[in-house]
Amino acid sequence: MQILPKALTRLIEELGRLPGVGPRTAERYAYYLLRSEPQIAMRLAEAITHLHEQVSYCSKTFALIEKGQELSPLYTNPDRNKKIVAVVEEPLDVVALERTGQFKGTYHVLGGAISPIDGMGPEQLHIPELLKRLDEDNVEEIILAMNASVEGESTALYLQRQIGNRDVKVTRLARGLPVGVDLEYADQITLSHALEGRQKF
Amino acid sequence: MQILPKALTRLIEELGRLPGVGPRTAERYAYYLLRSEPQIAMRLAEAITHLHEQVSYCSKTFALIEKGQELSPLYTNPDRNKKIVAVVEEPLDVVALERTGQFKGTYHVLGGAISPIDGMGPEQLHIPELLKRLDEDNVEEIILAMNASVEGESTALYLQRQIGNRDVKVTRLARGLPVGVDLEYADQITLSHALEGRQKF
Repeated sequence: MQILPKALTRLIEELGRLPGVGPRTAERYAYYLLRSEPQIAMRLAEAITHLHEQVSYCSKTFALIEKGQELSPLYTNPDRNKKIVAVVEEPLDVVALERTGQFKGTYHVLGGAISPIDGMGPEQLHIPELLKRLDEDNVEEIILAMNASVEGESTALYLQRQIGNRDVKVTRLARGLPVGVDLEYADQITLSHALEGRQKF
Repeated sequence: MQILPKALTRLIEELGRLPGVGPRTAERYAYYLLRSEPQIAMRLAEAITHLHEQVSYCSKTFALIEKGQELSPLYTNPDRNKKIVAVVEEPLDVVALERTGQFKGTYHVLGGAISPIDGMGPEQLHIPELLKRLDEDNVEEIILAMNASVEGESTALYLQRQIGNRDVKVTRLARGLPVGVDLEYADQITLSHALEGRQKF
């Protein structure tokens, strides 16, 4: 016997597709939407409906932009230094770096990382477009800002090889202790990185 | 400067209203919806849109039912014993109890628990309807199946007083060790309950 109404069961199923959302969490979300004002559910439904039709990708940096634009304002803005390019895996990584308020260069979104298990090879990433930018924008420094994971590491190594002996400085984000962590709880590899990369005080 | 497209920012904001969803989680959900096939987003949007128009409440038990129905099939089903009523706080608690496959009585959903901090008083709960059912259905046993929280406890005590000296057995769910828990990690109160409610082996 069907315990819950079909519409609710269906919503729980659809919500369960979101990353990291199990059946219990999906139930909780669905019931929240049912209990709150219909407008709240409607506004969410509309926001989801219009997502794909209003969002596009920058043809140069592959960052997310408004549909109808051609290039990301983070690229076209004259205050941003086109000679410094931070290479990231995903569009939301741009948001994370922008939050620091420290970076005045431009971005290049690869669209993922090399991961044979997930069937992601270098040919699916925006690497040729990055190499083209090196010449077009006279890039002086590439900051490899991939995730600190095996996939991010592989992608960084692959990129370094592709860039080869072009006249461009290749750097990567520092490895070390994150803020607020006790030394005794830091894992071995992080601590090794922190030792290797120690800096003058 | 707007880093993300407006449609995405708006979706992140709306998803952030879901219970327990912070800005990072909302970003992750929104980006998942953006990356997957538009149909997946559309199906979710439709499920949300139709939720309120297709779900209603049973006029007797206040369980969730299909719009257009009058009573919950869990109440009308002749196999269910109307003389035993499990009183729960929320409609999803019915699902939890049904999953056990152990209960053959009927349900009564209060619609919350007494919680002065949240402005929930007994007058907002479906208590008069429960008292009416006691007579109408010749109820023999009421199982208080509220959450094991301060609010659930207060509600149970209040209900017990309301039922007064009517000729009905009032029971509540057993307190004790949950399955799979080590004794040394069980909290004091749970352990006290487990001792008090010890059973013949």
